[in-house]
Amino acid sequence: MVIVTSPSATEAEIRAVVECVERAGGEAFVSRGVRQVVIGLLGDVERFAGLNLGRMPGVNRVMRITSSYKLVSREHHPERTVVEVAGVPIGAGTVTVIAGPCAVESPEQTLDAAKLAIRSGATLLRGGAFKPRTSPYAFQGLGLRGLQILAEVRAETGLPVVTEVISADDVDMVAEHADMLQVGARNMQNFALLQAVGRSGKPVLLKRGMNATIEEWLLAAEYIAQRGNLDIVLCERGIRTFERATRNTLDVSAVPVVQYLSHLPVIIDPSHSGGRRELVLPLSRAGVVAGADGIIIDVHPDPATALCDGPQALIAEDIDEMARSMAELAAFMGRTLLRHPIVRVVGGDRRIV
Amino acid sequence: MVIVTSPSATEAEIRAVVECVERAGGEAFVSRGVRQVVIGLLGDVERFAGLNLGRMPGVNRVMRITSSYKLVSREHHPERTVVEVAGVPIGAGTVTVIAGPCAVESPEQTLDAAKLAIRSGATLLRGGAFKPRTSPYAFQGLGLRGLQILAEVRAETGLPVVTEVISADDVDMVAEHADMLQVGARNMQNFALLQAVGRSGKPVLLKRGMNATIEEWLLAAEYIAQRGNLDIVLCERGIRTFERATRNTLDVSAVPVVQYLSHLPVIIDPSHSGGRRELVLPLSRAGVVAGADGIIIDVHPDPATALCDGPQALIAEDIDEMARSMAELAAFMGRTLLRHPIVRVVGGDRRIV
Amino acid sequence: MVIVTSPSATEAEIRAVVECVERAGGEAFVSRGVRQVVIGLLGDVERFAGLNLGRMPGVNRVMRITSSYKLVSREHHPERTVVEVAGVPIGAGTVTVIAGPCAVESPEQTLDAAKLAIRSGATLLRGGAFKPRTSPYAFQGLGLRGLQILAEVRAETGLPVVTEVISADDVDMVAEHADMLQVGARNMQNFALLQAVGRSGKPVLLKRGMNATIEEWLLAAEYIAQRGNLDIVLCERGIRTFERATRNTLDVSAVPVVQYLSHLPVIIDPSHSGGRRELVLPLSRAGVVAGADGIIIDVHPDPATALCDGPQALIAEDIDEMARSMAELAAFMGRTLLRHPIVRVVGGDRRIV
Amino acid sequence: MVIVTSPSATEAEIRAVVECVERAGGEAFVSRGVRQVVIGLLGDVERFAGLNLGRMPGVNRVMRITSSYKLVSREHHPERTVVEVAGVPIGAGTVTVIAGPCAVESPEQTLDAAKLAIRSGATLLRGGAFKPRTSPYAFQGLGLRGLQILAEVRAETGLPVVTEVISADDVDMVAEHADMLQVGARNMQNFALLQAVGRSGKPVLLKRGMNATIEEWLLAAEYIAQRGNLDIVLCERGIRTFERATRNTLDVSAVPVVQYLSHLPVIIDPSHSGGRRELVLPLSRAGVVAGADGIIIDVHPDPATALCDGPQALIAEDIDEMARSMAELAAFMGRTLLRHPIVRVVGGDRRIV
Repeated sequence: MVIVTSPSATEAEIRAVVECVERAGGEAFVSRGVRQVVIGLLGDVERFAGLNLGRMPGVNRVMRITSSYKLVSREHHPERTVVEVAGVPIGAGTVTVIAGPCAVESPEQTLDAAKLAIRSGATLLRGGAFKPRTSPYAFQGLGLRGLQILAEVRAETGLPVVTEVISADDVDMVAEHADMLQVGARNMQNFALLQAVGRSGKPVLLKRGMNATIEEWLLAAEYIAQRGNLDIVLCERGIRTFERATRNTLDVSAVPVVQYLSHLPVIIDPSHSGGRRELVLPLSRAGVVAGADGIIIDVHPDPATALCDGPQALIAEDIDEMARSMAELAAFMGRTLLRHPIVRVVGGDRRIV
Repeated sequence: MVIVTSPSATEAEIRAVVECVERAGGEAFVSRGVRQVVIGLLGDVERFAGLNLGRMPGVNRVMRITSSYKLVSREHHPERTVVEVAGVPIGAGTVTVIAGPCAVESPEQTLDAAKLAIRSGATLLRGGAFKPRTSPYAFQGLGLRGLQILAEVRAETGLPVVTEVISADDVDMVAEHADMLQVGARNMQNFALLQAVGRSGKPVLLKRGMNATIEEWLLAAEYIAQRGNLDIVLCERGIRTFERATRNTLDVSAVPVVQYLSHLPVIIDPSHSGGRRELVLPLSRAGVVAGADGIIIDVHPDPATALCDGPQALIAEDIDEMARSMAELAAFMGRTLLRHPIVRVVGGDRRIV
Repeated sequence: MVIVTSPSATEAEIRAVVECVERAGGEAFVSRGVRQVVIGLLGDVERFAGLNLGRMPGVNRVMRITSSYKLVSREHHPERTVVEVAGVPIGAGTVTVIAGPCAVESPEQTLDAAKLAIRSGATLLRGGAFKPRTSPYAFQGLGLRGLQILAEVRAETGLPVVTEVISADDVDMVAEHADMLQVGARNMQNFALLQAVGRSGKPVLLKRGMNATIEEWLLAAEYIAQRGNLDIVLCERGIRTFERATRNTLDVSAVPVVQYLSHLPVIIDPSHSGGRRELVLPLSRAGVVAGADGIIIDVHPDPATALCDGPQALIAEDIDEMARSMAELAAFMGRTLLRHPIVRVVGGDRRIV
Repeated sequence: MVIVTSPSATEAEIRAVVECVERAGGEAFVSRGVRQVVIGLLGDVERFAGLNLGRMPGVNRVMRITSSYKLVSREHHPERTVVEVAGVPIGAGTVTVIAGPCAVESPEQTLDAAKLAIRSGATLLRGGAFKPRTSPYAFQGLGLRGLQILAEVRAETGLPVVTEVISADDVDMVAEHADMLQVGARNMQNFALLQAVGRSGKPVLLKRGMNATIEEWLLAAEYIAQRGNLDIVLCERGIRTFERATRNTLDVSAVPVVQYLSHLPVIIDPSHSGGRRELVLPLSRAGVVAGADGIIIDVHPDPATALCDGPQALIAEDIDEMARSMAELAAFMGRTLLRHPIVRVVGGDRRIV
């Protein structure tokens, strides 16, 4: 049994619910998220049913958990959620572009990539400081120094930062520097990490595992939601199939399927799924008209020297076409492509683009 | 070694090439297609190389077969092919909609479906008379009677007919009634059938096998091309993956990948890949902006009673939205959505829509 | 509704059943197999139920077809079937080895391979005369000449012949030369071919499609059975997965699963699934102790020069180890490894091994 | 560049190597494992090459890391490794059975399962205290209490304990109670966890991810090895395919492939791959004759009431057949099935079976 409190619930109201449950011989587990508190109950469900918890002040909904996922399901929450990342919305009504380098390599490379990102239509900056790599001998990211570079580039450009966290122990450190925490495909069932980002108070970008069914993906989101964090954006990034012409197979059908099952926003990653630069534009367009709430793409000022996934990064000549496509297709879908206010300071000062 | 003759090559010219090869101790295999004759050579390649066959009258190209597919490759044929089906083009410049019932059940059902097809933007009518079914106890189609119904509905509506052939022995009979022969996913590596449709003189719609790599699909097309028939349209219809929320996974990336590798047109089948009505529109839109030259969809006047694949057929209320989407996205892609001239004869006569 | 007659049913008895059905307004479709006649009924099932067809002379079983496969199901046929190929049994009680070259290339190569086959424990000779090849430019087999070579080697060695047929039109020609017809993985859903081998009067080796579920495989067998031929041996030959270290992934679990669902014998093909010589022995052993009724393997006197699939052929030094393993593991499973009577004629005559 | 020290290397010898590297301007990263110390070098490889590190006291091998995995590769380590778990060997020469309940539920259930395990041929006890579950609402294990129960049952029976750890933060606690740490399929690319178990000083059982290629699996093992821990046993537990008749598809070919590529022992898990009790025996037999160094199976005294994966647990009547099969097939493979010394103390004392 799970109780979702209203955003305006006071501490006293929450305490009252907990005490009521405990008096009935149950245990109450309070999870505090950015906007909501979720109280999980352990004990005799029948007994709880008699408590009329749904009528208590500060309580929004009481749900019996009978089937697989509840908090992220659209069944009890028909209106689609809009997640805000430092003021930038992701959800129905907009198409949001997240762009940046696959890996943060240096301040210059990250700033240059951020400028490309803005030109491509991005309002959020992506960039990896901690890289989960299949081989222990591959470049693993700059770590804390990478986070600092991202924060510096945010200060310079105004772009909020999305970055991956690969270990529960790193969540606090990453949350301190980033505006949105990414859980990567390889960690989609790292339950300790899911619970940690669920407690972090930061919006989460949850990538689908390469071999995860849509149901398993939504259950992974439920792990985050259970800790009180419903600010989750799902990201389809390609699944593993027998086809070898692409790195992974973008499951574009997952976009409408997820939107049918869940109220959470869903975006696509055309860079990692295709693994080839020339597929980024077609797949981005496909994702948006399939209904995606946004895209996340790799841009790199000089892909040939990239330390990670260079072959799939968009280059300057694709950038304007990306921005044009996203704007027109957003309009076709009845949405708006958000644009970053371009900083132009004359006279020795910062100037973007 | 393969010789492609020019469309204007005379019989005498072709005979001269064959004799030249035979005098050199080789065997020449002449394949006559709709527009072109292809001559395959067996024997000592080095010796043929000395014959200067490329200079003989009527010869367009001489290709050494070193890698996997040649005739359908874009390598030697950079301009993209437009295939015409009874005057209706499929290829760069247009978005072509093929629509109709999954299975032909009766004259009325087929005519009603054809009217829906026209409203949805279709210029070609699909409909199955021979149905390859996984179970021997499932409805196998009306056979010859189904072909006749399709021909009657073509006479009534003016829509050329695309229909599946499931056995090499049936190719002549089907070719007599249809304007385009479809080879289904389960038969993609039925090489006898591929060769038979290659000799048929009719355009071929070649569906990708559910577990076929893109390379295997192009090699299957090469089997058809080798018999002299280059009027091949490829159709991505979903591949088999672990995901169970959809019947198959539409591999939308296959569209740009195929266009990079081959000069043949490629369309998508959103009905059979998704297996669910509500996915047809999003996937159709995704396919077109990924660059597809068209779509093939199921429409049924009364899906609840369909003998085959009812749950995925578009119904009347989706139809106008489909036509609008296709027209707008075609324009976005710099293409035209062809529209069927709607027959309106006042006074007792036929009237469509 | 399907009627299986007893093996001793007379023509008069069969005719009586057909007439009874027709008098009731139904249609009866008689399929004559090697050992049994199957009569399929079309019409009003309820009315047939009143005819008491199960009591008519010559009738073995009457089955209502409600679920997917019936004739090959173990539900109504708990005892496991033994299929005999020119006197060689495949089924419970024995482990049968089928061996020979992937492709028939010459009389010498085929005879040498047959000798290796016998040494390896084989009692049936495999060899491809018609090869379904992904590429139209790959070696397609010797065709009729290949069949003749196989028949000559059979005369020489006494080994009955198993060979693939790739087109419904070739079934009669192949059946004339071979003792068992193989339907390959790519043709598992070539329904015209399934029906043709079902009518052929020859035992059939039905390979599982690379992407076929076990249910689809059994339904393909049902297509054959429906034409009156229950002499079907199933062959697991690997499925297509993401793993690239092996050509396909041998689904060894399919052996016990099939034996649970169907009464048909099932063997495995360790050569084509692994695609590597060093996997043939381990996978053969694994198949037998998983319960397989036999194995089918490639042997080649000189793999380095093989025109087809050389890298996976066993060579002489593996052969004795194979025979020893099969004999010991057959004993462990309570079965017998059949051995071919080795021909030793002194004085100028033939001598094998 | 990686330096593997000899087991007898002293601290002074190790320090000398580190200093030598640092004087050359490099960084040395010392990883201390159970038996060996591994020193990773960062810096100018060419310069290191001049230091003649391989000749320094205490140094066993110096390897340049050019390709994917090195420490676990058989290339530089042709003899196969035997891993000892509290005195129980896993490797060439033996077949080791690990058995026990999927999840620890109570002291009684665990003790009863341990007795079944011994009867089945087990010399190691498995049991889950921390369960990674797809759904947050599924039973997640007893945690620390589960570890304590396992330790109690070890004291009672003498069986060393293998148990899963699902978070890097739990490694110390689990290592305190267990004799071998299991990394589950969902965590195969949880790199923080891999590094933590690599530092733990305990042998590790590394399950293959459901969608992991063999190469990715060996790279995951390399992450562990890189932290100085080469006591790794690999476990094939089924991969995700399209087949739905089994929970996963046991990739039995992976056993010989891994043994060809790596010196590490490899076992199979027939319980989780098949997901059905009746497949456990056939798959166990198949694994052993494919060359596996052991098996890990679920046994439960009362599967009907199991909180986790009951349908796949062996029950009492299968147990003796398992022990007999393993002993006979071990002998066939030239190995020994280890047997646990059965405790029989008369007069009020402990007695097993």
